Amino acid sequence: MDPAFITPFIASIQDVFSTMLQLPVTIKDPRIKADSATTYDVSGIIGMSGDVVGSVVLSFPEATARRVVSLFAGADMLPTNPDFADAVGELVNMISGGAKAMFKGRKVSISCPSVIVGRDHTVARQKGTPCIVIPCDTDCGELAIEIAVKAVSSAAIAA
Amino acid sequence: MDPAFITPFIASIQDVFSTMLQLPVTIKDPRIKADSATTYDVSGIIGMSGDVVGSVVLSFPEATARRVVSLFAGADMLPTNPDFADAVGELVNMISGGAKAMFKGRKVSISCPSVIVGRDHTVARQKGTPCIVIPCDTDCGELAIEIAVKAVSSAAIAA
Repeated sequence: MDPAFITPFIASIQDVFSTMLQLPVTIKDPRIKADSATTYDVSGIIGMSGDVVGSVVLSFPEATARRVVSLFAGADMLPTNPDFADAVGELVNMISGGAKAMFKGRKVSISCPSVIVGRDHTVARQKGTPCIVIPCDTDCGELAIEIAVKAVSSAAIAA
Repeated sequence: MDPAFITPFIASIQDVFSTMLQLPVTIKDPRIKADSATTYDVSGIIGMSGDVVGSVVLSFPEATARRVVSLFAGADMLPTNPDFADAVGELVNMISGGAKAMFKGRKVSISCPSVIVGRDHTVARQKGTPCIVIPCDTDCGELAIEIAVKAVSSAAIAA
């Protein structure tokens, strides 16, 4: 994957977490994700379309997600609360929107986020788009951002 | 939700399943989905952006997904096989693409599909977009298509 797609997400997650949660994020070495590796328990997913297509997943163990949502929403809540998914979706939306703004000269739309809650679920993607996992460490616990995007030519997306 | 968004999905799933799988689909009464209701075990998710924003989820119990994928790919495979998620993603991609083509006069992009595998996972969405579930019955078992989309003004999506 073009590293030009990785650095915006690193900058954006650090920016969003420090601004919205006052939570510093330590970035660990990005790696390529194996096909069927499981994700954590709570995942916010956003799709990209336009000059860059693919998906972005922000994934947390449940305990970490609860701590992060509590910081963001100002109240502890269970994953069954609709506000919980709303908060996770809003975080992945802000991170993806921030990253997208750094894709210079490319027109990209981001979809509304979907939030998955379910222990050890797997988020698979279509073959042909490599997925890079960026592990992150915070005082609330570990989390990861998974990026599976690629650039397409303008011609391919017309119509 | 505008019924103009529901009928294209009904037509498209029947079209895709009969063309690609020779599998007739019986549509049951659509209903509004409760906030935290669980989905089935395997879900293909696609995001829409442009003049219509939101997400579309095609969800199956695992046994039904295996039968449908087997018809589509011509071979039985386990959900851990990367080709399994690929097949589910391709089905939701064809259904959403077909439905999108029936949104007259609206420019819509669809994202690459994400496929979730995990028993009784929940696909939550942001508040404010109602989600309509269309239950479907087939000879391979029950499945559902969940649609949470809304129209936005062209002005709101510029930039």
